[in-house]
Amino acid sequence: MKTVEFREIVKNYKTVFFDAFGVLKNHKGLINGIDKTFEYLDSLGIDYYILTNDASRSQKDLALGYHSKGISTITTDKVISSGMLAMDFLKAKIKTGTVAYLGTERSAHYIETAGLQTLPISTLNLDEEEHLDRIKCLVFLDDEGFDWNHDINKVINLLRRRNMSVVVANTDINYPVNRKDIAVAIGGLADMVEEIVGKRFIRFGKPDAQMFMFAYEMAQNKGPLRKDEILMVGDTLYTDIIGGNKFGFDTALVLSGNTLPENAKMKIRSSGIIPNYVCESVAVE
Amino acid sequence: MKTVEFREIVKNYKTVFFDAFGVLKNHKGLINGIDKTFEYLDSLGIDYYILTNDASRSQKDLALGYHSKGISTITTDKVISSGMLAMDFLKAKIKTGTVAYLGTERSAHYIETAGLQTLPISTLNLDEEEHLDRIKCLVFLDDEGFDWNHDINKVINLLRRRNMSVVVANTDINYPVNRKDIAVAIGGLADMVEEIVGKRFIRFGKPDAQMFMFAYEMAQNKGPLRKDEILMVGDTLYTDIIGGNKFGFDTALVLSGNTLPENAKMKIRSSGIIPNYVCESVAVE
Amino acid sequence: MKTVEFREIVKNYKTVFFDAFGVLKNHKGLINGIDKTFEYLDSLGIDYYILTNDASRSQKDLALGYHSKGISTITTDKVISSGMLAMDFLKAKIKTGTVAYLGTERSAHYIETAGLQTLPISTLNLDEEEHLDRIKCLVFLDDEGFDWNHDINKVINLLRRRNMSVVVANTDINYPVNRKDIAVAIGGLADMVEEIVGKRFIRFGKPDAQMFMFAYEMAQNKGPLRKDEILMVGDTLYTDIIGGNKFGFDTALVLSGNTLPENAKMKIRSSGIIPNYVCESVAVE
Amino acid sequence: MKTVEFREIVKNYKTVFFDAFGVLKNHKGLINGIDKTFEYLDSLGIDYYILTNDASRSQKDLALGYHSKGISTITTDKVISSGMLAMDFLKAKIKTGTVAYLGTERSAHYIETAGLQTLPISTLNLDEEEHLDRIKCLVFLDDEGFDWNHDINKVINLLRRRNMSVVVANTDINYPVNRKDIAVAIGGLADMVEEIVGKRFIRFGKPDAQMFMFAYEMAQNKGPLRKDEILMVGDTLYTDIIGGNKFGFDTALVLSGNTLPENAKMKIRSSGIIPNYVCESVAVE
Repeated sequence: MKTVEFREIVKNYKTVFFDAFGVLKNHKGLINGIDKTFEYLDSLGIDYYILTNDASRSQKDLALGYHSKGISTITTDKVISSGMLAMDFLKAKIKTGTVAYLGTERSAHYIETAGLQTLPISTLNLDEEEHLDRIKCLVFLDDEGFDWNHDINKVINLLRRRNMSVVVANTDINYPVNRKDIAVAIGGLADMVEEIVGKRFIRFGKPDAQMFMFAYEMAQNKGPLRKDEILMVGDTLYTDIIGGNKFGFDTALVLSGNTLPENAKMKIRSSGIIPNYVCESVAVE
Repeated sequence: MKTVEFREIVKNYKTVFFDAFGVLKNHKGLINGIDKTFEYLDSLGIDYYILTNDASRSQKDLALGYHSKGISTITTDKVISSGMLAMDFLKAKIKTGTVAYLGTERSAHYIETAGLQTLPISTLNLDEEEHLDRIKCLVFLDDEGFDWNHDINKVINLLRRRNMSVVVANTDINYPVNRKDIAVAIGGLADMVEEIVGKRFIRFGKPDAQMFMFAYEMAQNKGPLRKDEILMVGDTLYTDIIGGNKFGFDTALVLSGNTLPENAKMKIRSSGIIPNYVCESVAVE
Repeated sequence: MKTVEFREIVKNYKTVFFDAFGVLKNHKGLINGIDKTFEYLDSLGIDYYILTNDASRSQKDLALGYHSKGISTITTDKVISSGMLAMDFLKAKIKTGTVAYLGTERSAHYIETAGLQTLPISTLNLDEEEHLDRIKCLVFLDDEGFDWNHDINKVINLLRRRNMSVVVANTDINYPVNRKDIAVAIGGLADMVEEIVGKRFIRFGKPDAQMFMFAYEMAQNKGPLRKDEILMVGDTLYTDIIGGNKFGFDTALVLSGNTLPENAKMKIRSSGIIPNYVCESVAVE
Repeated sequence: MKTVEFREIVKNYKTVFFDAFGVLKNHKGLINGIDKTFEYLDSLGIDYYILTNDASRSQKDLALGYHSKGISTITTDKVISSGMLAMDFLKAKIKTGTVAYLGTERSAHYIETAGLQTLPISTLNLDEEEHLDRIKCLVFLDDEGFDWNHDINKVINLLRRRNMSVVVANTDINYPVNRKDIAVAIGGLADMVEEIVGKRFIRFGKPDAQMFMFAYEMAQNKGPLRKDEILMVGDTLYTDIIGGNKFGFDTALVLSGNTLPENAKMKIRSSGIIPNYVCESVAVE
């Protein structure tokens, strides 16, 4: 597959949206040369944001993850997670009361910041009516932090006993854990529960338009910005690229993650998802 | 199911978004008392828009449909169709060249207005390479205006021979044609084609967030407007209500269309899609 | 919904196939009057079998479950479980070697009886190549007996590292645990894993034709038996009734389980799955 | 991909089941050397049958298709079509009355042979109650022989007005029409209608077990035959091979049709569907 240099194409945009995993980092840490990429963008006055399907950590913790690896230019306000959209939903639609969740205590930060009480499903007692009556919403936040055997069945029976809105704060069904292995993501567990209870959940995260709109609005805070002045960069056709295309951004597929150089052409052909550019990676040297 | 009066709840909002079919009109024409509803909104200075999954007719033609039935306050700028989002996509991402389509000549208006050449699939010759090379995108616009036997197979083989973005300008899979009957909508035909060719299409229309965002942006042109100052009114839980809820609007389900009074409670319970209000209809007397 | 008496209709058949849960037993134990039903069938010389989607227990253990409740006429040879079909598959297609499984030790009986070595996923070490090389097939047997958090992810990565046939020995996605609650069944967990690994699993259990055929063959061992001499009795339209209909049996829906008397008519109407008869229960008095 | 010679492996079986398209014939006619294959099988006394997902033509017409191409050994009794299973269903479960259908007049043969009246959907008048009352079942037979624009919508509204069993006599969603092109098969149209009406249809054809069982029973008429004495040969992993494996037959994938030599290894790996053998084709020289 013929590729173009990221340093050449990015010059034509005012703002770049980066996917995180497979673009900026992988199982080993940062992708080679990423530090130079941000220096290059800064030198040209190009703004950037990171769009990530993640509700396991706060915006601040996600930014600190880059600082600890030596990239200090990624400040908290440059990170946009699907958890933030879930938080916005809770603020706008739930407003007050208790929100039950599956995930770690850390992931519950998104509920607390929305000004709501948190209730981990592990501490829920299905036989106390009063307990159930307090719950106004259920959120799927993270695949860690709870006992799947017990708590998934508990969630199913909670939803059979009380009607409530259900939010899935990360649409991904799996995620990479090392060079070879993957793990079920909270979105995969939520799909199973949705199928079993027969209800309709509300999902946040790429490729859904709401994620791109949220990022677009944040980027506009710095001044007027047209959609065609933004480049969406990702390693996955089915989330980053189709979502960016649909929203009206230009898109660049990088071959440093999910889409391997030897398969890129075939995958674009078989999916009908066509990026504006294909680059080896976002490294600029 | 206990219902509330539309005239009482709507007073608390600055803007109303109405679904069209089942809310403002049905197979017999306008729903009784709708004219008074618009007078009432005008008298209170409440703004309103109509959000419709439709790409068969232009914004102007859709507005004229209301004028011809005696409601002249629904001006062209008050109608927002899924076809307009498809048009926006074509302008932003295709820019120049020829766009093939399934639909009537009238529906092709959305392609022409985007400044592109139109090619009805009926006139396409799959054996002329040059013919195929000109096509930059395919759009599903309307279930009428073409021969399904021939043209659906032609579309499938076009997509096997050339890789291109495919747009479905209306996500609905069926629509009502009279008191008893329904018909396959263009979204239903597109689902079948997508399954057969194995590619990923781009869809516009409720409940997708992009439709609500498009309407929200238009409504904001008249001055600052928060999401919680908007009421989304619809007759269908799975499009109007879940989409409005997810986007952060308050929502009202009306029982004058798709959701029957005797089923409303059970449907809300079994779907987990919970409107803020349930009203008999939007009539104000 | 107008119902007919089971005692009247069953007289016209030589053999009855019963679903177990919701037909013969429920969360409280045996359904009232079941003991008389079997006496009645014996008195008329009508043969009977129990067809159950279950791989958690052996044929013998399932029969003992009825004995312990006072019904001694249900001998081992009268019970047909989906686990027996999985066992048949292993015998025919795997023949020798090690079969990995998710489930209790008791459920692994189906693998042992097929003459194969068993390997619980909990004891699998993904980092020992030799360990992986021994595995010739993976079977989903029971939702109990393993740690979902660890072992589901282990199964996913096993299937990414080695290619093998995967068998789901029970297609059900959930099962009742008491009057109010349900639990995820092994079929539900298998659906999630299949979606994530993108491979195609082999499933056994109603409504699949292979289950009915297996039972039909067993019933024929006692002498010639035409399909129209068999009555399939079940409480679930989507498994017992559609499967029985498709296979060519007459079918009776009972209202003592999954399908409630107040919903039966609507469910038959909305599903298009039409039993030959509807009975309150299989009680004969 | 390493392949083995068909002539060598077939010697170990008493009976062969062949898929038709991609195995015995393709868009150009018979696959090279097929005539010799049947001579070879006859010389060794190996029995054979053709299993095809097809309801557009009778068993006899399908056999004549081979005769006209010079292979006279494929007699009518050697052809097994999914239409024959639909016919069996109609005989067993409908028994008398009128059956409506989508397809050609020729395909309606399967209904007539079951002793039932046929009613092409094209002649159905939805406004005559009496007309509707006569219909006891609907069958999807062939994608040809009717006007899709009118008759698909008519079928949808028939199923909304009357509750009846619906049979899909061929599960395939598309079929090849020449070297490059495919067409929507009747199974694809049926999927769309099922989604829109929300009912559950009864499907016949590979990979469903009922098709293999039907063939197995026919083959046993000539004398005792164990499952492991049968070889299922096909060009498609998702129908012929997984279906044959599940039923307990040995399976051979041929690379003369759907599965290309360059993709075979990857497809087996990514699907987890593992044939016992892979052969270039069934040619014996």
